[in-house]
Amino acid sequence: MARWQPDAPRRLAASALDLFEENGYENTTVIEIAERAGLTKSTFFRHFPDKREVLFGGGTVAGLLTEGIASAPPAAGPLDAVADALDALGRTFFTADRRAFSRRRQAVLNAHTELREREALKRIDLTASMIEALDRRGVPSLSARVAAQLGTLVWELAFDRWIDIDNSEDFGPLARQALAEVRATGAARQ
Amino acid sequence: MARWQPDAPRRLAASALDLFEENGYENTTVIEIAERAGLTKSTFFRHFPDKREVLFGGGTVAGLLTEGIASAPPAAGPLDAVADALDALGRTFFTADRRAFSRRRQAVLNAHTELREREALKRIDLTASMIEALDRRGVPSLSARVAAQLGTLVWELAFDRWIDIDNSEDFGPLARQALAEVRATGAARQ
Repeated sequence: MARWQPDAPRRLAASALDLFEENGYENTTVIEIAERAGLTKSTFFRHFPDKREVLFGGGTVAGLLTEGIASAPPAAGPLDAVADALDALGRTFFTADRRAFSRRRQAVLNAHTELREREALKRIDLTASMIEALDRRGVPSLSARVAAQLGTLVWELAFDRWIDIDNSEDFGPLARQALAEVRATGAARQ
Repeated sequence: MARWQPDAPRRLAASALDLFEENGYENTTVIEIAERAGLTKSTFFRHFPDKREVLFGGGTVAGLLTEGIASAPPAAGPLDAVADALDALGRTFFTADRRAFSRRRQAVLNAHTELREREALKRIDLTASMIEALDRRGVPSLSARVAAQLGTLVWELAFDRWIDIDNSEDFGPLARQALAEVRATGAARQ
């Protein structure tokens, strides 16, 4: 019964999203999510502290972003290091097979204040992860914070376009394009 | 009993902060907050939807920020308009008599994930207010988003310094200084 389920978090997230769409976030219980995924309530709680967390699959994204920044070429400037990390994220996480899920997930998040709050804090934590990773590259503290703020904006622009139903471009190129736009507008005129 | 209490939100926030410090956020009830403030539970709920909201006093800050951006000189660039708004905020809201309260409030927010989440969403909403106010000045959409991201960083830097126990400078000048630092670091090298 309690055997190891390596794909449990993903299955639980998929079931949760189905149920939130069908019955609403408020009307869905953890037990229903677990049952729909063919798992138990205790398996759910091994992976997530509560229902609110089920659509925020752990630290995967923060880890990928941190690694991506760390492995950027030594000569890369802070915002280029962030762009490299977004590229890496596009290759390994925001992949084509996750696009439909991400779109549906975002619609559910946008519709619920308590999920928007959780997302907002996750975003701040991600920005903090970027700043730390840039610090470890020796980027001065304030430059790191500026790059992380602009990197977060690049992420948002790229993500919004990536989940847009009319878009078929991959996440990495969308991030590169958004970065170029932000640079063209922001850097010179502020 | 139910007569109009114009200063009720501020009194409720002050009582809530006292009680959160004394007994912890989780252990404090809305009734206790209202009683400490010499008000009723129904007065509390006329001003705040729940306990979580009591330290986030309505839309005052968003309104001041929006007005400040709107009334910046026509020739001011987007980030200068934001700086003008932060100046105005320093004159009317982040005043010397609020500094100790703001410091204590921030310590309570930092210690509770659910308050940090609410704060994170409020910050996103504030950034959105800045973007809208800049849009109304005719600033192109992406420039507005860049200025709002950098303006949020300037705000954070200034606020952290303003509530620092070792600091005695006013909020407005701190914001001007933070803006100069962000410009010096960010704009040229990203």
